[in-house]
Amino acid sequence: MREIRVGLLGCGIVGGGVLRLLELHQKSIEARLGGRIVIKSVVARDDAKDRPAELPRELLSFDPDALLARDDLDVIVEVIGGVEPAGTFVRRAIESGRNVVTANKALLAARGHELIELAEQRGVDLYFEAAVGGGIPIIRTLREAVASDRIVSVRGIVNGTSNYVLTRMRDESMGFDDAIAAAQKAGFAEADPSLDVDGGDAAHKLTILATLAFGARIDPRSVMTESIRPVGAIDIAFARRFGYVVKQLAIARDATDDAGRRALDLRVHPALVRDGTVLASIGGSLNAIYLEGQALGPCLLAGHGAGALPTAVSVVSDIIDVGRNLLADASGRVPQRAFPTEALADIPVRDPGELIFRYYLRFTAHDRPGVLARIAGVLGAFDVSIEQMVQEGRGEAEDRPVAVVMLTHPARERDVRRALKEIDGLASIAEPTRWLRIEDR
Amino acid sequence: MREIRVGLLGCGIVGGGVLRLLELHQKSIEARLGGRIVIKSVVARDDAKDRPAELPRELLSFDPDALLARDDLDVIVEVIGGVEPAGTFVRRAIESGRNVVTANKALLAARGHELIELAEQRGVDLYFEAAVGGGIPIIRTLREAVASDRIVSVRGIVNGTSNYVLTRMRDESMGFDDAIAAAQKAGFAEADPSLDVDGGDAAHKLTILATLAFGARIDPRSVMTESIRPVGAIDIAFARRFGYVVKQLAIARDATDDAGRRALDLRVHPALVRDGTVLASIGGSLNAIYLEGQALGPCLLAGHGAGALPTAVSVVSDIIDVGRNLLADASGRVPQRAFPTEALADIPVRDPGELIFRYYLRFTAHDRPGVLARIAGVLGAFDVSIEQMVQEGRGEAEDRPVAVVMLTHPARERDVRRALKEIDGLASIAEPTRWLRIEDR
Repeated sequence: MREIRVGLLGCGIVGGGVLRLLELHQKSIEARLGGRIVIKSVVARDDAKDRPAELPRELLSFDPDALLARDDLDVIVEVIGGVEPAGTFVRRAIESGRNVVTANKALLAARGHELIELAEQRGVDLYFEAAVGGGIPIIRTLREAVASDRIVSVRGIVNGTSNYVLTRMRDESMGFDDAIAAAQKAGFAEADPSLDVDGGDAAHKLTILATLAFGARIDPRSVMTESIRPVGAIDIAFARRFGYVVKQLAIARDATDDAGRRALDLRVHPALVRDGTVLASIGGSLNAIYLEGQALGPCLLAGHGAGALPTAVSVVSDIIDVGRNLLADASGRVPQRAFPTEALADIPVRDPGELIFRYYLRFTAHDRPGVLARIAGVLGAFDVSIEQMVQEGRGEAEDRPVAVVMLTHPARERDVRRALKEIDGLASIAEPTRWLRIEDR
Repeated sequence: MREIRVGLLGCGIVGGGVLRLLELHQKSIEARLGGRIVIKSVVARDDAKDRPAELPRELLSFDPDALLARDDLDVIVEVIGGVEPAGTFVRRAIESGRNVVTANKALLAARGHELIELAEQRGVDLYFEAAVGGGIPIIRTLREAVASDRIVSVRGIVNGTSNYVLTRMRDESMGFDDAIAAAQKAGFAEADPSLDVDGGDAAHKLTILATLAFGARIDPRSVMTESIRPVGAIDIAFARRFGYVVKQLAIARDATDDAGRRALDLRVHPALVRDGTVLASIGGSLNAIYLEGQALGPCLLAGHGAGALPTAVSVVSDIIDVGRNLLADASGRVPQRAFPTEALADIPVRDPGELIFRYYLRFTAHDRPGVLARIAGVLGAFDVSIEQMVQEGRGEAEDRPVAVVMLTHPARERDVRRALKEIDGLASIAEPTRWLRIEDR
């Protein structure tokens, strides 16, 4: 039986999961692939303490150069994470004619086009199912299952940490700091959770998803990215009163205008999602991604977006896929970005100021006569009209500012920002106004 | 540019969708495949009146034999439906070395193994993503995305007609007959809806899913199949009171016993699903399928399970996949049943009588002293213990029987059936007891 010889770069959570899964299902994988996946070498960081129980000590080394210099490997699996040194390692692996499987979304968002084009030139595969949505088969689906359709939008919950934090805040009426502490304790947030809660991780994933969905070259810096930190327990409570749940969403939408000028709408931010919908019901650390195809209509994929074993399922299924291509002498059979290089386009990103949303606005105002009229007056002057309003706290201590919450009819983002700037300058406004977009299309 | 030459057998709803999709996205498909999909011939039934607008008249014929005798076709797309004559046509296509794409679940459930093994011998592909879940990529996911894992269960809503009927019954407090009439009017049910509402269609799909999930040869007749017809508006209303929704579920579960004897649990029946869960929120004609993998955990796929264009997305993506194999000279690259023939096993199906569920029981009893005690006594004698109970209608006309509804603790199905048989023989029981399984794992 032919061997698929694998070198593993990285032996942390995901690397350990890969070793464990390969051991757990060795026979079945062998039967299904018609070949044997053999781990030939594992490179770990020499300062790491814990080694997976499944790792034979004789395979372990601390020298990536030695692994990359070997000429007896078919596939390099990169599960180090981060742009460097992982990017240099992947580049060298491809240059020397190895196939690569990676789970590295930061690397793909930053240098995916360069590395995939190099792989195409060298006739090797670069697979990355695990980079988005952990165990959820969203990459395969975009690349193959809906290859016959035109994707209209991709929207979803792709960062489990943020979803866990927002779910705890809602279920237990916690503030952000307490929820982060709870997430860290439960192993769902890192010591520095910035990349997750500030939207950077979701923006990396969205860059990859949008490339496959639209055949676009996208600069990850062009994704509008807003943190969930400003979302207060009070906002989650008000959202619930109006029948909404707050979620960190990643959205990539074909925003081609009426004149046919192609453009994309790319955003990561907290948003109000209607309660009772499937997206609202995705709680805890789960991920969920909605595709909307022109012919397909809506299609939802949901599951564990992280975790050693769910992520390893995607990594090892990628190794099997790469292995099948090796056995059939068909490496490069599918374009890794769903579109071949020559079909990719540079599609501009729409200025978010031009987009139209319904908004949740929370004003903090001194409860004086006429304050509501002034707020409403400014909103009206900027074409922002109010759909629903609720005011809390009347009758309490006279000087304490009160919350006034409004949901608007659809309004242009630029107008809303200008109106809020003017409102926040009013003497009766005690704190900067908080606002969130409502996503209920 | 190389051509992938296609012969289309069948020009009804799905066939029309395939022609429309190929025309709609011709350029993009060509760019992504690196080849041109060309419809060379279309065979329709000569009694069909409507022809799709996208069908060039010169391609149309009424002679399947002539199409099958052509030697210039790469792929035969079969969208006729039903076991015969479709099965004979597919067999002849494979025998003459053509690749086949089909949407035919009845044929695959009845003769899938024979046809796929023939395809393997001939070195051609037989793809069937559209046979289960319309546009939902469940076949690819089982075959490739989770190839590295061991599937524990597959459960879902795979028949849109039944789901539409049950959703109307719940949302509008309709009876079954009115809901069927509404479904027929809306185009979601056929004149004879038996195959859908009695579970046959879902059983065909479950047979295919279980084959791919477990690597099993399954006789579709071994799937326990129960109709949704006996579900009354009253049952849906009572279910709601207890926090449940009634859904037609298709379930395939690894039921290997403690001694390691492999067995499967295969069932299609109406069941109570807890409200607020994702499965409960799948309404109307949508489909949803939950996978549970040993390493993967839960993974949900949902979307349109039928309809011309969603189904066509799967059919045309299969043509692209088969085309990629042709271009890479890699036909047969992936085993079509997720496992190669030699790895398939005959796994016995568990006797449903041995299975353990919680149950919803609706007794119709004359409201006489002691009737509850007698019901409870019989249940107790068969080890069926009551978790919740509600009785309706007390104080109305003296002779009118009343509904007594109970939810049980987990009980063995055989015991429940025996207890109900005895209870239905009691003088105070006015009508046969209605019962439903509760699926809330």
